[in-house]
Amino acid sequence: MRDRKTNSKFAYEDFIVGEKIPLGPYEVSREEIIEFAEEFDPQPFHLSEEEGRDTLAGGLIASGWHSCSILMRMMCDAYLNNSLSQGAPGIDEVKWLKPIRPGDVLKGNSTVTAKRISRSRPELGIFEIRHELINQHDEIVLTIVNSGMMGLRNPATKAEAE
Amino acid sequence: MRDRKTNSKFAYEDFIVGEKIPLGPYEVSREEIIEFAEEFDPQPFHLSEEEGRDTLAGGLIASGWHSCSILMRMMCDAYLNNSLSQGAPGIDEVKWLKPIRPGDVLKGNSTVTAKRISRSRPELGIFEIRHELINQHDEIVLTIVNSGMMGLRNPATKAEAE
Repeated sequence: MRDRKTNSKFAYEDFIVGEKIPLGPYEVSREEIIEFAEEFDPQPFHLSEEEGRDTLAGGLIASGWHSCSILMRMMCDAYLNNSLSQGAPGIDEVKWLKPIRPGDVLKGNSTVTAKRISRSRPELGIFEIRHELINQHDEIVLTIVNSGMMGLRNPATKAEAE
Repeated sequence: MRDRKTNSKFAYEDFIVGEKIPLGPYEVSREEIIEFAEEFDPQPFHLSEEEGRDTLAGGLIASGWHSCSILMRMMCDAYLNNSLSQGAPGIDEVKWLKPIRPGDVLKGNSTVTAKRISRSRPELGIFEIRHELINQHDEIVLTIVNSGMMGLRNPATKAEAE
């Protein structure tokens, strides 16, 4: 990320295509896995080791949507919550590559793979962005690809347009 | 869905390609929008009406991941929690088409668009499935497309293989 003036938020201009923005670490507790599952995804393999043992999961694993939500929190903490983000229209791909289990410590990165200024809204930039989470065994557990919208710091100049 | 013996769980054989399985209704409260956002997605437009007013959201809207998690809960309640589901490897597409706001009442459906028995694991079926959520104004707010894995009731016969 570029150097910024003190107290200014990350804007479209600050994100460099190809740069990996670090995320985490984030430790996943048994309690939060079960709490999320009880509210949103009460399948056996998200509720207890015992119930998960006879399934493909082989024990207690985090809901896939919990995994996505944890990544979201890591993005917010790393850069999004201190930015001119305007949300996202959707997700192009989610891959739950390995189970996330109690005690796993996740880190990862977000990488803007392309960026452009909106033609219809020249104060708004559009990213293509890829995210990756890795566990403590250096296994990739989750990848997400999506578009995102980010405000420009200086819409008039279009200095950073591609 | 096919008629089943009492107490038997929904299995691969019960899902009919093209049949819409109803979901909901589910009323989304202001409290749960904010609670989810505080834990996983603390962006201004997910935390309060005031903070959201000056953004594209135009007020308080549910986190996109919260929307996905609500759909998951509706799927669990409608059929997944009483089935031989073995989870999903990922998501092919998420579209957040309209914001979900406090008080919205969601309903929807899941439709299996294709199904086949796994070659490597003949006790397991693989679905292509599409989900849709609609609000009280009959606007489509969310669509998701993914693959899912579902156990067969009678793996030996392969009676329902396509």
